[in-house]
Amino acid sequence: MTEKHVRIRRGNKEDALRVRNELVGIAMDIFKSQGIEGVSMRAVAAKAGMSPMSPYRYFANRQALLKYLWFQSIHDLKEYLHESITEIQSARKRHRVLIRAFINYWIEHPERFWLAYEAQGDRGALSPFSIPESHTDSYQAALKLLRTTAVEVAHEIGVSDKEAILASDLCMVMMQGYLNAYLVNTRYPWVDKQKLKEIFIEQTALSVERFLIEADQASG
Amino acid sequence: MTEKHVRIRRGNKEDALRVRNELVGIAMDIFKSQGIEGVSMRAVAAKAGMSPMSPYRYFANRQALLKYLWFQSIHDLKEYLHESITEIQSARKRHRVLIRAFINYWIEHPERFWLAYEAQGDRGALSPFSIPESHTDSYQAALKLLRTTAVEVAHEIGVSDKEAILASDLCMVMMQGYLNAYLVNTRYPWVDKQKLKEIFIEQTALSVERFLIEADQASG
Repeated sequence: MTEKHVRIRRGNKEDALRVRNELVGIAMDIFKSQGIEGVSMRAVAAKAGMSPMSPYRYFANRQALLKYLWFQSIHDLKEYLHESITEIQSARKRHRVLIRAFINYWIEHPERFWLAYEAQGDRGALSPFSIPESHTDSYQAALKLLRTTAVEVAHEIGVSDKEAILASDLCMVMMQGYLNAYLVNTRYPWVDKQKLKEIFIEQTALSVERFLIEADQASG
Repeated sequence: MTEKHVRIRRGNKEDALRVRNELVGIAMDIFKSQGIEGVSMRAVAAKAGMSPMSPYRYFANRQALLKYLWFQSIHDLKEYLHESITEIQSARKRHRVLIRAFINYWIEHPERFWLAYEAQGDRGALSPFSIPESHTDSYQAALKLLRTTAVEVAHEIGVSDKEAILASDLCMVMMQGYLNAYLVNTRYPWVDKQKLKEIFIEQTALSVERFLIEADQASG
């Protein structure tokens, strides 16, 4: 195991943030290679070249550390979504790419999907998409990206964007359904998961478009 | 607490099934009034007027008893779905009523939705819709109802029914998304859950219809 010898200078707030970020990075490495069971305050301390108790200066307990892993996952999701849609001019196409990227991110990182279940204690939070500090910047940025895209789709098809948020909620509901089917309800006798994915992406995008059009007509 | 004094005659298989069903009924009553924590082999025995160990003749352990509660929930779901669609002539309308009934059943019985999480040990089964004995009659009947309805929708709109199963999988994926949004991911900032429900039902039904039409056109 490579030790990283994270340097600590006490009493400096920026330094404390830096150390915390480094410890989160170390914990994420452990998480990737050994799963959630491998993530302990002691293991992080060892890999950071710290005394076993030092991580407690930055995280109240293991639960808090796991929560930071979750925040990091959301941060990476946001980056992944942004990268996936750069240079796509058409809003309708961008919307489809965004749906695909969103579900792909979780399918490619199932351990991060499950992290939400582990990182949060209570049942009301039993979802990868509900986080306690829902005002965290990355979460808000990802949410905004979905909503902004719905607005842009409305403009591209030439209808009002006043129901764009509701439209993006519809999209989110459907995407959660796909992830649930793919990652959770694996015993349901899905006839063809790969075909279903393509159909799902297209029909979800079309549902959003059609709803925007219908909402525009209803208000018009 | 009312004791039911379930009568036991040993050595008769039909009688054993009858007793087991009565014990499941008693457990379901306890579950409804006291939640899952109240359901114990001892509590069921007490309410049945049996000795504390007697329920173990019918269920290996509490986990097995919970599994039977889950089977009962699926049985009731199936009955509820069938009742909801009797006398509805139009297949397209019946489909919408079925989607509404499916999500309403779980929203009206959230404790049954969570039961699946409790009744099953492992994470791969972390869904109300995946059950270990997926060949149970009620489960198969509910599944068949969804698939048959997709076939009937195809016939009513005058297209091939050869992708009806995939279409009903699409419907199931989307319905799971709504339930996840409504019951699990309660912290997501949904703008208007009631409006979302109506939009969701209509757009899900239309997605199935549109996919059936597109699949028919693609196959020429």
